[in-house]
Amino acid sequence: MQRRNFIQQSSLTVIGMGVFGSLLSNNKKTGTGLSVNGKRIESRIFELAKFGVDEKGRNYRVAYTKGDIEGRAWFMELMKKAGLDPTIDAAGNIIGKRNGKNASLKPIGFGSHIDMVPDGGNYDGTLGSIAALEVIEILNENNFVTEHPLEVIIFGNEEGGTIGSKAMVGDMTAEGLKQKSQSGLTMAEGIKAIGGNPDTIKSCIRKKGDIHAWVELHIEQGGILEKEKIQVGVVEGIVGIVHWEVTIEGFANHAGTTPMNLRQDALLAASKFIIAVNEVANSVKGNQVGTVGKITVQPGAYNVIPGKVVLGLEIRDLSGDKIEMLFRNMQKRAATIAVATKTKISFERQANESKPALTDKKLQQFINASAKALGFTTKFMQSGAGHDSQHIASIAPAAMIFIPSVAGISHSPKEFSTATDMANGANVLFQTILKIDKE
Amino acid sequence: MQRRNFIQQSSLTVIGMGVFGSLLSNNKKTGTGLSVNGKRIESRIFELAKFGVDEKGRNYRVAYTKGDIEGRAWFMELMKKAGLDPTIDAAGNIIGKRNGKNASLKPIGFGSHIDMVPDGGNYDGTLGSIAALEVIEILNENNFVTEHPLEVIIFGNEEGGTIGSKAMVGDMTAEGLKQKSQSGLTMAEGIKAIGGNPDTIKSCIRKKGDIHAWVELHIEQGGILEKEKIQVGVVEGIVGIVHWEVTIEGFANHAGTTPMNLRQDALLAASKFIIAVNEVANSVKGNQVGTVGKITVQPGAYNVIPGKVVLGLEIRDLSGDKIEMLFRNMQKRAATIAVATKTKISFERQANESKPALTDKKLQQFINASAKALGFTTKFMQSGAGHDSQHIASIAPAAMIFIPSVAGISHSPKEFSTATDMANGANVLFQTILKIDKE
Repeated sequence: MQRRNFIQQSSLTVIGMGVFGSLLSNNKKTGTGLSVNGKRIESRIFELAKFGVDEKGRNYRVAYTKGDIEGRAWFMELMKKAGLDPTIDAAGNIIGKRNGKNASLKPIGFGSHIDMVPDGGNYDGTLGSIAALEVIEILNENNFVTEHPLEVIIFGNEEGGTIGSKAMVGDMTAEGLKQKSQSGLTMAEGIKAIGGNPDTIKSCIRKKGDIHAWVELHIEQGGILEKEKIQVGVVEGIVGIVHWEVTIEGFANHAGTTPMNLRQDALLAASKFIIAVNEVANSVKGNQVGTVGKITVQPGAYNVIPGKVVLGLEIRDLSGDKIEMLFRNMQKRAATIAVATKTKISFERQANESKPALTDKKLQQFINASAKALGFTTKFMQSGAGHDSQHIASIAPAAMIFIPSVAGISHSPKEFSTATDMANGANVLFQTILKIDKE
Repeated sequence: MQRRNFIQQSSLTVIGMGVFGSLLSNNKKTGTGLSVNGKRIESRIFELAKFGVDEKGRNYRVAYTKGDIEGRAWFMELMKKAGLDPTIDAAGNIIGKRNGKNASLKPIGFGSHIDMVPDGGNYDGTLGSIAALEVIEILNENNFVTEHPLEVIIFGNEEGGTIGSKAMVGDMTAEGLKQKSQSGLTMAEGIKAIGGNPDTIKSCIRKKGDIHAWVELHIEQGGILEKEKIQVGVVEGIVGIVHWEVTIEGFANHAGTTPMNLRQDALLAASKFIIAVNEVANSVKGNQVGTVGKITVQPGAYNVIPGKVVLGLEIRDLSGDKIEMLFRNMQKRAATIAVATKTKISFERQANESKPALTDKKLQQFINASAKALGFTTKFMQSGAGHDSQHIASIAPAAMIFIPSVAGISHSPKEFSTATDMANGANVLFQTILKIDKE
C-alpha cells in the first residue's frame, strides 16, 4: 500500500495535473488510468430497457411485476458471467460478491436498483446497477484484485418505498410487509415473487460495521448539474421528507344562490394556502423545497361551492430542524387564511417520513478527488430524491455520485443521460472504490 | 268582470289598507281573503319526502329512479282527487287541468318539480308543486271558478338539466336525449320510465301565446331573504350561467430534485387563478358570482410537481354582457399568471350555457302587490339558481315567488323552510293567480 502511494505521488510530479492527476496514468497495479467501457454501459442500459414494457408500449418495470422479475433474471445472468455468484437475500435484494485479497476485511458495497415507477425512465437506478457491474468487468478484464471483498447490491423495490435497503438496515416492519405495492401484491407477496422470503426477513439485516463503505452512482433527477454545466455531483446528503395531509373545511353551498360575501369556499382557502407554501419555501436561503402535489375537492361540481379540500403537502431539506421551522411558518399562514376565509385548516403528519441522511465526509472527498483527477468539474450538492443509500448511511459510511439528467427530467420516459456522462460517472465510481480500497 | 272590480274598489275604500288592502277582505266572489291550508302543505311535504329514500336512508328521489316514479304516482293520485285529471306529456311532464269560465282564454300555469339532486332536500321544487295543488284545493273547497283555465304543471327531471321544461319550449335536441342522466338511464330512457315518449317529444311543445302566464313558487336556496328578514322574494330574473373548462399546463417533475426556481407548477398557477376569479367577481357592484367548484391535478402525488390542472369555472349574472365582461377580466388575469408561472392557461367554453331569463315586469308587480296586501315584506331579487321558469319565460310571461331558506342551505338534507313561510308563499301564489285571472 505504501509503495502504491509512493508511485502515485511520483507520477503526480511528472504529469503535473494537480494532487490527483496521477490517477490518469495507466497503472495496472493501482488501477488508476483504467477506464470503464462506456459503450458496454450504454448498450446494457438499452438492453435492460426492453424488460417491463407493457402492452401499451409504456415503461412498466415496476417492482414485483413480470418485467421486474425478467429484468432481474437478465441482470443476475450477467453477474454470473462476471463471476459474482449472485444470491437473493430474504428482502429480495440481489447480492453479488467478489473476493478481495484480505478475507478479514469488510466488503466495499456499490450498486443501486433496477425497478422503476410506472411510466418511468431507463436511467434512474439502472445506471448505478449497470455501472457497478461494469466496475467488476473492468477489474476482471485487468485481473485486478482489491484488498477488500466487493459486493454489488441491487436493491429490491426502491421506487415503492426503498423496501430492500430498509429491510437490510432492520427498518422493515410487519405492518410494512402488509402494505400494497404498486404491483397490486402486498410487499410480502412481492418479495416472495422476486425470490425473497418475508418470513425470514430479518436474516437480511446488516449491522453497523458489516459493510466497510457504500457508494451509489445515480442520475441527478434534477436540472442543477446540467444548468450549471457540471459533470459530477458529490452528494452531501439525502434530504429528509415529511408529508402532511391538509384538510380544509368550508361549507358546500349552491354556487348560484350564495352571494360572494356569504361563502366559506374551501378551495379559495386552499389556493391561498398553496401560495403560502410556495412563499414560505422561498422565504429563506437554501435548497429546501415545499410542494403541494395533490388536491381533491368535495363535492366537486361546477355549480357547488367547495365544502372540503384535502391536499398533500411535502417539505424536503437536508436539515430536519429547517423542515420543522418551515412547517411552523406554513401553519401560521394557514391559521391567518382560515380566519380570513371562515374555514378550518388541519394538518395530519403522515407516518412515512424520511429523516435526512448525511453522507460520509471522507467518502465525499474521495469522490471529489477522483472526479477532479479525471478532469471533471464537480459540485457538492444535496439529493432531493430519496435513495437506498439513505438507509445504508445508518449502518456504514455511505456516499453518492450524481451525473447530469438532461433537462432535469426524471420518473418519465423522457428521462435521459448522455453516454459520456454515464461513462464519466462510472469512472468516478470505479476510481472512488479503488481509493476506498487503498485507504 | 267589471262588477267584481267595482266591489274590490269599494272595499278598498272601506278598509283603507292601501291600493291592495281589499285583498284582505274575505270575499268569496273575488277570492281575496281566502287562505291556503298551511298544515296540509306541511304534511304533504313530509308525505312526499318518504318517496325516494334509499337503503342508506339518504334522500334519493332523483329523476327517473324508483323514488321519482313512486312520488309522481302519489302526486298524480292527489291531482285526481282534486279533479285535475292529470296526464303525462311526451317529455314526462305531469299536467293537471281545471276548466275556467271562459274556454277561449289561454290557461294560467303554475307548478314546479318533485325530483331532487342526490342527497337533496325536501323543499326544492316540492314546495311549488304542493302549493300549486293547494291553490286548486282552496278553489275547489270554495267552489271558485276562475275565468281562465288553470294548469298545474310538474316538470320532469328539473335537477338533471330542466329537461321537461326545455322540451316544452322546443329546446330538447336528439343529442340531449342521448345524454346520461343521474339515474344511469339516458334522458330518452328516463323519459320513457316516467310515462313520456321520447319518439314524439315534439308533441309536448307549447308555442308563444299558448300559456297566458306562468308562476312558480320556490324556496330561495340562498341566504339573502333570511339574512335580511324578508318574507317574500319577487324574482326579477333567472341568471345566465356559463361554464368554462380551464386547463393549466405546467411541467410535471420530481418534487425533491427540482429547485423552487426551476418549477412550472400548474397547481400554483391554478391557485393564483382561483384567487383572481374571486377578486374579479368581487371587483364590481352587483349580484354576479364567480366560482371554481372542481379541480383535478395530474399526476397528483405528494412527490410530483403538478404538470396539469383542469378546473371548472362558472360565472352567473342576470346580464349576459356582464358575464362576458367578467370573463374577459379573468382571462386577462390568467394571461399574466401564465407568464409569471411559466404555464399555459386555456379556456374551453362549455356547450350547456343558460341565457339569462328576465321575468315579466307586470307579473312581478302582481306578486309584489299580492304579498304587500297580505302584509308581507318583499324584496326584488335575482334567482341565482336555474329553474324551469327560465325556459317558460321564452314562450309566456313568467314569474317566480321566493320564500326564505333557513341558513340559505339547499341541495342538502339540511334544506329547510318553515311552515309559516311556506303558507305565506302559497298565499302569495294564490292571490297572484287570482290577480292575473282578473286582470
